[in-house]
Amino acid sequence: MRSLRDKKHRRREGLFLAEGLRILTEAREAGALPEMLFFAHDGVGHPLAQGLIAATEHAGGDVIETTPDILSKLSGKDNPQTLVGVYRDRLTPLERLNRSASGIWIVAQALRDPGNLGTILRTSDAVGGGGLILVDDCVDPFSVEAVRASMGALFTQAIAATRWETFVAWLRQGPGQLVGTSLRTDTDYQAPRYEAPTFILVGNEAQGLPQAYEGECDLLVKMPMLGKADSLNAAVATAVMAYEVLNQRRVR
Amino acid sequence: MRSLRDKKHRRREGLFLAEGLRILTEAREAGALPEMLFFAHDGVGHPLAQGLIAATEHAGGDVIETTPDILSKLSGKDNPQTLVGVYRDRLTPLERLNRSASGIWIVAQALRDPGNLGTILRTSDAVGGGGLILVDDCVDPFSVEAVRASMGALFTQAIAATRWETFVAWLRQGPGQLVGTSLRTDTDYQAPRYEAPTFILVGNEAQGLPQAYEGECDLLVKMPMLGKADSLNAAVATAVMAYEVLNQRRVR
Repeated sequence: MRSLRDKKHRRREGLFLAEGLRILTEAREAGALPEMLFFAHDGVGHPLAQGLIAATEHAGGDVIETTPDILSKLSGKDNPQTLVGVYRDRLTPLERLNRSASGIWIVAQALRDPGNLGTILRTSDAVGGGGLILVDDCVDPFSVEAVRASMGALFTQAIAATRWETFVAWLRQGPGQLVGTSLRTDTDYQAPRYEAPTFILVGNEAQGLPQAYEGECDLLVKMPMLGKADSLNAAVATAVMAYEVLNQRRVR
Repeated sequence: MRSLRDKKHRRREGLFLAEGLRILTEAREAGALPEMLFFAHDGVGHPLAQGLIAATEHAGGDVIETTPDILSKLSGKDNPQTLVGVYRDRLTPLERLNRSASGIWIVAQALRDPGNLGTILRTSDAVGGGGLILVDDCVDPFSVEAVRASMGALFTQAIAATRWETFVAWLRQGPGQLVGTSLRTDTDYQAPRYEAPTFILVGNEAQGLPQAYEGECDLLVKMPMLGKADSLNAAVATAVMAYEVLNQRRVR
């Protein structure tokens, strides 16, 4: 199980790790139960932990008591969670995504930081987004760090991984406005009225979006940057954009 | 120098590490030069690196050529930056903060993640914020991870560290609206007109704000959360708030 901390093994097994009562409970509420559930004796006092164990057993999963030491090795944390679940990975094939399920989707291109990826999933959940489409060589959404940063949103959001050309072909088969943030535009991000479903395109942390990808966007916008820096953190930029799209549509 | 990766040693020496041409150049533009500058031969081709070396020498700093191997040990990265600077730490005593220098300030309480702290500095720079006030037991803003995540904003933003009671006493000596995000309010974050200077208060990643601290706020607001999760990442929540405050004031 510890080998699931490596992407190679996750891919081969089609499994990944999630830790902690909070995230495992979010998963259960989203309808996902672990194939294997490891717990240390100290971690089962909480009624939610009891419920999780019962539900996992009922669904035919393996429930395994172990030591805090071994859990620590599984999770790679000094201060381990007392519950670790092994889940079947849950990529959605792009052609199975139902774009009309939400008015907001996030598309990430060559995103490299697992914390950013998880945080973007968490934000997408918060704005009622449909999910995350990964294009080009993104970090694995099922890494321990990404799962942790998602705070369980990994289980509520659809996740697809594809190539740019395939994504664009799919996008143009139906409604959808592709919006990129860029330094190469004068359009303020609050100026346009965004059309649903809006696909917010976020680029690599260091390079931003390739110019050809910007060319494919229906709209390029920029956020005001009043300081010395010329860009925001990728997860922050995504959130500022996503809340603008949401704010234009919600009733206050 | 490598010991500066530990908080204890940073505090004792009053020094910290920053890496990479981009961040070191931001520092220089903000008026900060390293006391010591380590470089590997491969890293000095860029004119900005040449300028940095000349400026550091001119200011009386030590410029030391070393090997990529040793730089890797300094930075703790497999793929090291070719420039590492050692800087005098730059905490501003709270009483020396000039609150009228900006209409937006961030106050972080018991923030534990260095990536969040650095990202918040980067966002504060972007919205034209004055700086970051750390209360209670926050992660060290001069850790390698925080410096890296700040992308140089550590050098453009004022940073103060203090106790909650001291902060509140200082705040109430002058103008300033203290705004916290909370689950215990019905006020939408876009409803109020924020008053400058606005102090955005962000709580600990896991616990949020203590209730007594919320009681001290002039205003509690909440962001819409349409999904399963009940909170945003701390750096994301700060950014969504900070851009709302900025958007209310800027001319588009």
